[in-house]
Amino acid sequence: MVKTAARQPVPARRADAERSIAAILEAGTRLLSADPTASVADIAKAAGVGRVTLYGHFPSREALVDAVLDHAVRMADDVLEDESIDTAPAPEAMAGLLGRAWEILDRHRRLFLAADRTLATERIREHHERPLRRVERLIARGRREGDFRTDLPLPWLVTVFFSVVHSAAQEREAGRLAADEVERVLVQTMLSLLRPGE
Amino acid sequence: MVKTAARQPVPARRADAERSIAAILEAGTRLLSADPTASVADIAKAAGVGRVTLYGHFPSREALVDAVLDHAVRMADDVLEDESIDTAPAPEAMAGLLGRAWEILDRHRRLFLAADRTLATERIREHHERPLRRVERLIARGRREGDFRTDLPLPWLVTVFFSVVHSAAQEREAGRLAADEVERVLVQTMLSLLRPGE
Repeated sequence: MVKTAARQPVPARRADAERSIAAILEAGTRLLSADPTASVADIAKAAGVGRVTLYGHFPSREALVDAVLDHAVRMADDVLEDESIDTAPAPEAMAGLLGRAWEILDRHRRLFLAADRTLATERIREHHERPLRRVERLIARGRREGDFRTDLPLPWLVTVFFSVVHSAAQEREAGRLAADEVERVLVQTMLSLLRPGE
Repeated sequence: MVKTAARQPVPARRADAERSIAAILEAGTRLLSADPTASVADIAKAAGVGRVTLYGHFPSREALVDAVLDHAVRMADDVLEDESIDTAPAPEAMAGLLGRAWEILDRHRRLFLAADRTLATERIREHHERPLRRVERLIARGRREGDFRTDLPLPWLVTVFFSVVHSAAQEREAGRLAADEVERVLVQTMLSLLRPGE
């Protein structure tokens, strides 16, 4: 009985910590997607936790932005899940994937800018490992089926996909690409790049 | 006479400051191109100036990396100067420009990584304004002469050039692209992206 009572607080504290972390990540995603310069104090306030609690979980703004990006990419990856990626002809599946990826990224593009100002591109790319595996699988299938080029390395084509999509987010934010032309521009850019050479 | 004597130290101090700044930028370019994590103290030592002097000119590591990147891009831009950019057929001129740009960037790719870890992509792009104007001029000529596509916005094509070349530097540094294949991969990637649609 004493043992049980002594142990009780540990899972309770852990559950508290998990709730705090979830609230911080939710608030961080929301605030940074609205304003890439949102402060740690603003995020703590919106999450309903104290700054000391926040810093207990994320010791720096960099650590917080890193965790928020990871959280947002995981949510985005679930939305990307669509069976057409494995069944439609590869160029059509690529156009559909780009449309869905852009829709999510556009909503979170300021969060991506916050990440870009805080983290190295290499680190940002690491967080995108799961969605980029989908892209890689699709390009590999398109190569096998003769729809996509095989004269450039597969990892390079995946990298160009990643940088082209993220360039679009930056151009959109800077006002150099209009909202209604981004998807067409992305699809034409990637399909030209993937088309087998003459 | 007194007036002259009183004024003398000012240009002398200014000349001293200019010499210090030049030495810091030279050492910064050299050290950061070898190791993107080079410290402010290492750079001050290599430049033969005290840390106080260095911080007097560049109040943070970020300010120093920003100035070193600007310095390196200016030097690089002089090397890119080549009359073939305005005379050779546009696809051939693009291949030549990519070759020269890659040669310089490959040498300084660790400095670029240092910049990427410290500055926002938007800021890094601003430093490349002069070389990117050359790229824009060449793509515009290729469009007029019917060698390059006109169905995507010109600023977008310039942006894709910038991100593709910088992705190559990152892939090369990460060991995902072999040294002897980068130039071919870059040229094929950009020419596929610029080719007019069927």
